[in-house]
Amino acid sequence: MIKEIAEHRSHRKFRPEAIPAEIMRRILEAAVRASNTGNMQVYSIIVTTDEGLLARLAPCHFNQPAAAAPALVTFCADVRRFSRWCELRGAVPEYDNFVWFMNAAADALLASENFALEAEAHGLGICYLGTTFYNAGEISEILRLPQGVIPVMTVSVGYPASNDVPLTDRLPLEAVVHEDVYRDPTDEEILGFWADREASDETAALLEANDLPSLARIFTERRYTGGANRAFSKKYFDEIVKRGFFNN
Amino acid sequence: MIKEIAEHRSHRKFRPEAIPAEIMRRILEAAVRASNTGNMQVYSIIVTTDEGLLARLAPCHFNQPAAAAPALVTFCADVRRFSRWCELRGAVPEYDNFVWFMNAAADALLASENFALEAEAHGLGICYLGTTFYNAGEISEILRLPQGVIPVMTVSVGYPASNDVPLTDRLPLEAVVHEDVYRDPTDEEILGFWADREASDETAALLEANDLPSLARIFTERRYTGGANRAFSKKYFDEIVKRGFFNN
Repeated sequence: MIKEIAEHRSHRKFRPEAIPAEIMRRILEAAVRASNTGNMQVYSIIVTTDEGLLARLAPCHFNQPAAAAPALVTFCADVRRFSRWCELRGAVPEYDNFVWFMNAAADALLASENFALEAEAHGLGICYLGTTFYNAGEISEILRLPQGVIPVMTVSVGYPASNDVPLTDRLPLEAVVHEDVYRDPTDEEILGFWADREASDETAALLEANDLPSLARIFTERRYTGGANRAFSKKYFDEIVKRGFFNN
Repeated sequence: MIKEIAEHRSHRKFRPEAIPAEIMRRILEAAVRASNTGNMQVYSIIVTTDEGLLARLAPCHFNQPAAAAPALVTFCADVRRFSRWCELRGAVPEYDNFVWFMNAAADALLASENFALEAEAHGLGICYLGTTFYNAGEISEILRLPQGVIPVMTVSVGYPASNDVPLTDRLPLEAVVHEDVYRDPTDEEILGFWADREASDETAALLEANDLPSLARIFTERRYTGGANRAFSKKYFDEIVKRGFFNN
């Protein structure tokens, strides 16, 4: 397996030193090699290292430890640059709609995965901050995103404080992979997929610390709770509309 | 740069031979190593190799040559498996909303990029088929996707018919990357970003073949046209609602 893929883990604590500009540039060169929609590159990458801006971004990521990094790299769907080029060249752009939000978000996410792997190849550690979906409006304001641009994913990056971070487990491959068509797992199979993780010492410690009887309830009652999910859903969707990606 | 990232290109013509099961398994093991939301793995990967099913999927991808591959791998957002596990464990899942569509779509896309790179490490060629957004309903029917599952991206994969496929160019890095905050490029800068590509022999040939005066108009009038964009936008968004991802 490609070394960086096999050894990938999320780092949540970074040393303070900056990433040399030449290293960052090489990582970004790798990011843009990813496949993208029609080679139109309808995305932008914002590399934030200014301390004042980092301090304002951290609360958007709920001040999670992983957000305290020397660089936060925000991958944005961006139809603005391409649309303006069309206008300048006598073409009529119509990318202000939902399927182009999806195309552009996909471009941004594929580039982010290359970014993450290449960063790791240079001895850096990264963490994906999915919180970008939760506070996209606030992030957009801080990063001064104009119409036609919306943040999709942030990757925090820096030299890891420790190299002693264990690999995370995954569900058995058969939980995720389907042959030819989707096959709905039985209830027994689903319980089987999670059995190892439920039986782990880590889960036992979590259940005790949270005073809850099941790992599933840790997810639903401590991590991602229903009411907040619905509020954040509305918030992100409103942002898509507001930023000009839903003139369907 | 990681070799597979540096050498990545889209292959659009494949030899007919099947991918050995053991190789496919190793590629899929790499796919699931990607970061994902809360390690919940809210995605599914459908590996279609059945000839009858491939023949039915091809028109969903507009019968583009790249879709004629020995395997089409469809990456789906999937909150169904996780939600059912929650129910079985006395937890109340609320993942039937838009922000979880985004989380799950991101999971699926990050896994797809690992898949692509690892496939290339094994001498295979791949092509991203963004057409999945355009005909998600039809694809869902063929792949028998239940509620809570929606296709996001398809990667076609096989042994390339030729190893003589050139690397594709990219815009200059400064077109895509912003330092600290977004900086709107000037019109002159935007024209500069595209200048090399506009001046290429490939563009000259395209303009002549299409009888159009600008590369931008090839995009807007030949490749992705406004009316179709709006129709497809509505279609994909309706599918999100229909498949249970918009009970906001």
